[in-house]
Amino acid sequence: MDTCNKISKFMLRNGYECRVMGVPKTIDNDLFGTDHCPGYGSAAKYIATSIGEIYHDARVYDTGMICIVEVMGRHAGWLAASAALPRTVGARAPHLIYLPEVAFDPEQFIRDVKEVQSLTRNCIVAVSEGVRLEDGTFAAENFQSGAVDAFGHRYLSGVGKYLESLVREKIGCKVRSIELNVLQRCSSHLMSATDVREARKIGSYAIRFALQGHTGVMMVFERVSNLPYMVRIGCKPVSEIANREQLVPRAWINKQGNDVTDEMFEYLLPLIEGEVPYPTQNGMPVHFVLNKSIVE
Amino acid sequence: MDTCNKISKFMLRNGYECRVMGVPKTIDNDLFGTDHCPGYGSAAKYIATSIGEIYHDARVYDTGMICIVEVMGRHAGWLAASAALPRTVGARAPHLIYLPEVAFDPEQFIRDVKEVQSLTRNCIVAVSEGVRLEDGTFAAENFQSGAVDAFGHRYLSGVGKYLESLVREKIGCKVRSIELNVLQRCSSHLMSATDVREARKIGSYAIRFALQGHTGVMMVFERVSNLPYMVRIGCKPVSEIANREQLVPRAWINKQGNDVTDEMFEYLLPLIEGEVPYPTQNGMPVHFVLNKSIVE
Repeated sequence: MDTCNKISKFMLRNGYECRVMGVPKTIDNDLFGTDHCPGYGSAAKYIATSIGEIYHDARVYDTGMICIVEVMGRHAGWLAASAALPRTVGARAPHLIYLPEVAFDPEQFIRDVKEVQSLTRNCIVAVSEGVRLEDGTFAAENFQSGAVDAFGHRYLSGVGKYLESLVREKIGCKVRSIELNVLQRCSSHLMSATDVREARKIGSYAIRFALQGHTGVMMVFERVSNLPYMVRIGCKPVSEIANREQLVPRAWINKQGNDVTDEMFEYLLPLIEGEVPYPTQNGMPVHFVLNKSIVE
Repeated sequence: MDTCNKISKFMLRNGYECRVMGVPKTIDNDLFGTDHCPGYGSAAKYIATSIGEIYHDARVYDTGMICIVEVMGRHAGWLAASAALPRTVGARAPHLIYLPEVAFDPEQFIRDVKEVQSLTRNCIVAVSEGVRLEDGTFAAENFQSGAVDAFGHRYLSGVGKYLESLVREKIGCKVRSIELNVLQRCSSHLMSATDVREARKIGSYAIRFALQGHTGVMMVFERVSNLPYMVRIGCKPVSEIANREQLVPRAWINKQGNDVTDEMFEYLLPLIEGEVPYPTQNGMPVHFVLNKSIVE
């Protein structure tokens, strides 16, 4: 949005009539000034669906296991928070959720896992890739510098592998880590109908607002109510928004820092609502491809 | 199927009238004597869909990248082979596919990647977790013993991480590895309608065959034709089948050992055909849960 701000100012200064509109878009959902960002609802739906499936997969086996799922999000925990949603459709997982908004304490993490193990044989953990220690360094940073591959190189692993290693070391039980990786941002076969509808709408409103004379603004969603779910589309000066992050409010994370609260469910559930049918061929989704051509 | 064989013989020997029927089920698709196994088509559909999405994700960026996708399969390459399918719906990937049926040569792999890079900026590689070197050891084995984590433990990484490290070392370009992990076996939101229909059918035929007097047999699919797709359900003595693996025929892998041939497409495409609608609640699939109770 910073670029949007600069271009808009440049155009105004040079008397060139061009309206510059910012339309938010990020699965990270961390843009300031809007209730949520297009893209987020679909990524959250993929994460929630996957965590539900991982839970049911683990449930089949009688030997207990710790399963750590690493979710995207370097600074904000919005994506990892969506891992909580399967609990509303019968899954008794994940048991623990760690977001970057709260300092991560490896020793407390081990105590948390042990406590879950005292109650149930499987423990599913969702963790943001960006969780940091009290001193501000990424939790996996020390681990990474210690790990060396066959070529003597620093092994760049994520926080999932780090916690897997930590559990193996400190608890010694069966443990696995799963990195949802790029599929959480590109699994278009599992889009949220709400997200897709809103993305189209906020784009068309941006055109309408531009025609009304707005420039240097970002289009935003304002939440009117959760139940029924209602949002209003408006715009805010980019200068008020650029370079600011929207983190998960501390009040939406439980006191112990290992789960989300009811507010998060109320916020999130409407965003993943509805399925989007997609065209298939040979049993696979057909993707719409834009050819990139150089315009002379 | 070995257990099925033993129980059947025991029952016959002891004059206890109990028919023992084997019904195949494995996403690995490596049971001998049947054209394919229930479960495989759905896993293949998930893998094909994911590879297609990964391709379109990579396509967005102008900086070239090598993307290595690790697919399940310790002994047989059936699952990794399904990565080829997105090519039939417009994806120009994956560029390279490595199966355990052909000895893996790390130096040839690097040459293969370089050749792809000379033609296109992105290179997507699908690799079976079970690829082995000429001497029979797993390709990632040496790598694993070299890697040590922060606790001084052997780092148990997969072949994807190994090849990622190899590319970084030998080519030095941007590279990423993705492990599809357990989601390829448990993503029930993406089942093949053909697979689900056949699974029900082969189960009901097993009952029918048992009532006709068969015992100590495994139910099998026999492929009648690819186009139109037709299978016949029969049974074979478990003694002929147990402890034998069905690998990908060498003729279905290209000469260089880095891709599959047309025969694989003809075999595979019918198995992933059709979508299965599923009940949803709160925007997520609802899973049917069997409570495990101890029968006194």
